[in-house]
Amino acid sequence: MSRFQNVRLEHASRLINHGPTVLVTSAHGGHRNIMAAAWSMPVEFTPPRLAIVIDKRTFTRELIHASGYFGVCIPGAALADLTYAVGSVSGREIDKFARFGIASQAGSLTGVPLLEHGCAAWMECRLIPEPHTEQAYDTCFAEVLSAAADARIFDNGRWSVREDNAELHTLHHLGAGRFATASKTTHARPA
Amino acid sequence: MSRFQNVRLEHASRLINHGPTVLVTSAHGGHRNIMAAAWSMPVEFTPPRLAIVIDKRTFTRELIHASGYFGVCIPGAALADLTYAVGSVSGREIDKFARFGIASQAGSLTGVPLLEHGCAAWMECRLIPEPHTEQAYDTCFAEVLSAAADARIFDNGRWSVREDNAELHTLHHLGAGRFATASKTTHARPA
Repeated sequence: MSRFQNVRLEHASRLINHGPTVLVTSAHGGHRNIMAAAWSMPVEFTPPRLAIVIDKRTFTRELIHASGYFGVCIPGAALADLTYAVGSVSGREIDKFARFGIASQAGSLTGVPLLEHGCAAWMECRLIPEPHTEQAYDTCFAEVLSAAADARIFDNGRWSVREDNAELHTLHHLGAGRFATASKTTHARPA
Repeated sequence: MSRFQNVRLEHASRLINHGPTVLVTSAHGGHRNIMAAAWSMPVEFTPPRLAIVIDKRTFTRELIHASGYFGVCIPGAALADLTYAVGSVSGREIDKFARFGIASQAGSLTGVPLLEHGCAAWMECRLIPEPHTEQAYDTCFAEVLSAAADARIFDNGRWSVREDNAELHTLHHLGAGRFATASKTTHARPA
């Protein structure tokens, strides 16, 4: 049973504000793919826009350029193995959804595969073509068209990190399959 | 006593791979500044390049454009209050280093202020002028010229997150002064 509910677009940047590793999903012409990406960031609150680095040699880049859309899914700690696995093989030869038994649904605005089980949130994104930065830095800009999050960990525009939702704590790749999880929090005191 | 030691340039991307909030430092013509930035990411391993969002209305953008350089310092958990404070006021009227009692040293390659006390690492960066993305997305690209890290938490190209170095665990801004700290880690099993 999904606990996902819509995230208001003005709150979408908060989903990746703290630097989680994400899963990028794409689909076109009967093909679909999923890969991990550690390098993404918001670039604008309203309209919500983000930048993400996707290597130009990947099958994902091909599918995104063909369709103009991609999904950004934010895996929880329980998906650490899967996150590392889908980042380590290419989807050009195999369907990673079938290979790894990944359940997904098609985004209502874009048709890209979206993951809910084990994920904290997802976003449907529209590529904003920027040929120079795509070529020079593998950096793709996009506008977030819709977003949703598991209400157990992100509700009313805020992250709620607790012991009882540990499996949804976001992953932050330290390298070589080691992740920090966003499990401990601290609150700054006003100056 | 500083425990900082040089980080090899091919390992520089790992310093921000996991999405920490950083402090951006800058200096030009007798002025200097420091601000917090949650939105940054590596874009290339070698040469090490990164992208960072710096609002075009900030004093920091002015100083960076004048000098061509900036510093990226990675605060540890003990600097949560400071990180939030320097992100909440403008350096156009006050010198935040004096106001908040921040110790810094001038980078040997660029002259930008670099923080060591309380920080896990720093990088000296050279702006790669990209007028379109700077204007359209406030996104600045840069090459990392040198990097160093506190050997207690980053050594030989790897993060070492332990209970005894908690004050150096990186900060990941969840919003409104709440940070997740990179304190708990998990290791993905190969597929």
